[in-house]
Amino acid sequence: MQKQFTRDQIDRLEQRYRANLINSLSGFKSANLIGTRNAEGNTNLCIVSSVFHVGANPPLMGMLMRPHTVVRDTLSNLKTTGEFTINHVNSNMLLQAHQTSARYESDVSEFEQTNLTQEFSQGIKAPYVAEAKIKIGLKVKSIQLIELNKTELVIGEIIELFLPSTIIADDGYLDIEAAHSICVSGLDSYHNTSRIDRLSYAKPESQPSSIWKPPKTKDFDIC
Amino acid sequence: MQKQFTRDQIDRLEQRYRANLINSLSGFKSANLIGTRNAEGNTNLCIVSSVFHVGANPPLMGMLMRPHTVVRDTLSNLKTTGEFTINHVNSNMLLQAHQTSARYESDVSEFEQTNLTQEFSQGIKAPYVAEAKIKIGLKVKSIQLIELNKTELVIGEIIELFLPSTIIADDGYLDIEAAHSICVSGLDSYHNTSRIDRLSYAKPESQPSSIWKPPKTKDFDIC
Repeated sequence: MQKQFTRDQIDRLEQRYRANLINSLSGFKSANLIGTRNAEGNTNLCIVSSVFHVGANPPLMGMLMRPHTVVRDTLSNLKTTGEFTINHVNSNMLLQAHQTSARYESDVSEFEQTNLTQEFSQGIKAPYVAEAKIKIGLKVKSIQLIELNKTELVIGEIIELFLPSTIIADDGYLDIEAAHSICVSGLDSYHNTSRIDRLSYAKPESQPSSIWKPPKTKDFDIC
Repeated sequence: MQKQFTRDQIDRLEQRYRANLINSLSGFKSANLIGTRNAEGNTNLCIVSSVFHVGANPPLMGMLMRPHTVVRDTLSNLKTTGEFTINHVNSNMLLQAHQTSARYESDVSEFEQTNLTQEFSQGIKAPYVAEAKIKIGLKVKSIQLIELNKTELVIGEIIELFLPSTIIADDGYLDIEAAHSICVSGLDSYHNTSRIDRLSYAKPESQPSSIWKPPKTKDFDIC
């Protein structure tokens, strides 16, 4: 049976119920761990479901952050140092990744608390997560306030990438499913995926067809 | 084997390869059909993978649009009329949904071309997609330019919702997986999901535990 919610009904929902409902509406979301360091060099790690693609050239990624939630350390760190990492959450480290959303004290590193392993590159001071298969290093390019609800849109420019060579398809597509990257629905539901298909570029005069070819060097032992 | 890309290497990639690679990096994305109408009342429909959650109170959703791509009609329509709908793509209508990304002429309705069915509510003039199980009607609240790459961030306020009562959990969470909503990776790969778990609100002193309970009225025949 179809259920309708009017705006008035939405506004009268109990706060937590409304949060669960509205957070479910956008569909599946990415699950990423954001690594930062503060001015003293202490590391911080935080799971977010708000990372999204902004552009390929220049390579830009964005995330939306609500300043007064557990991301406040992350936000403060990336404003101070101008750097952060994005690390795909995979199914092998889901519980640890979720645990980073606990409200630890500011001087506590989520790496220590969750037994995730920090690792560093030459290119950036922010920490990567060793357990992640897909790791992206970024410099902050802009922080814009969304006036409507005082969230902050952080956009970073990619400066380096680390990923398994076995997931790179001939045309540059990454088989993130083979890397066991997972997705999120609502505030707290995590999902594995199974590919339906990759579809050809749509044209008015023809129907889409399959273009899926597994990466040639695919190795199911990578994760 | 781990592959590293430096920024310099990314910048030297062939354009299409770079687009596939960078679009894969943010992780899994939502798949939604955006319904709009122009000033003459003609309808338009366009698949996007850029819809994201902005806030629950007030209920806000955003999407990022590149003005000179196939979303130009959608963008122009929602600027003119101030309204749009978001309709979850499900696995039963994937080929039709993907086909809406073809560059049809402006005076052609993607509903007719793809045999998706337009449907209207009392609350909004923009068209819904009858085949979608989860449908959201929105009014445009703001359009912000992302200066870095001239994309436009559209934020809409939810004014009404339509969804199967059978997917609503006791706490407001929507079992979008039971509604067969799918997700996207890269530019053109579509995926079904299978739930790993819903996890309890993380606290410093305890480990996360399962909170997943299927909606009581769950009916697997809904889709």
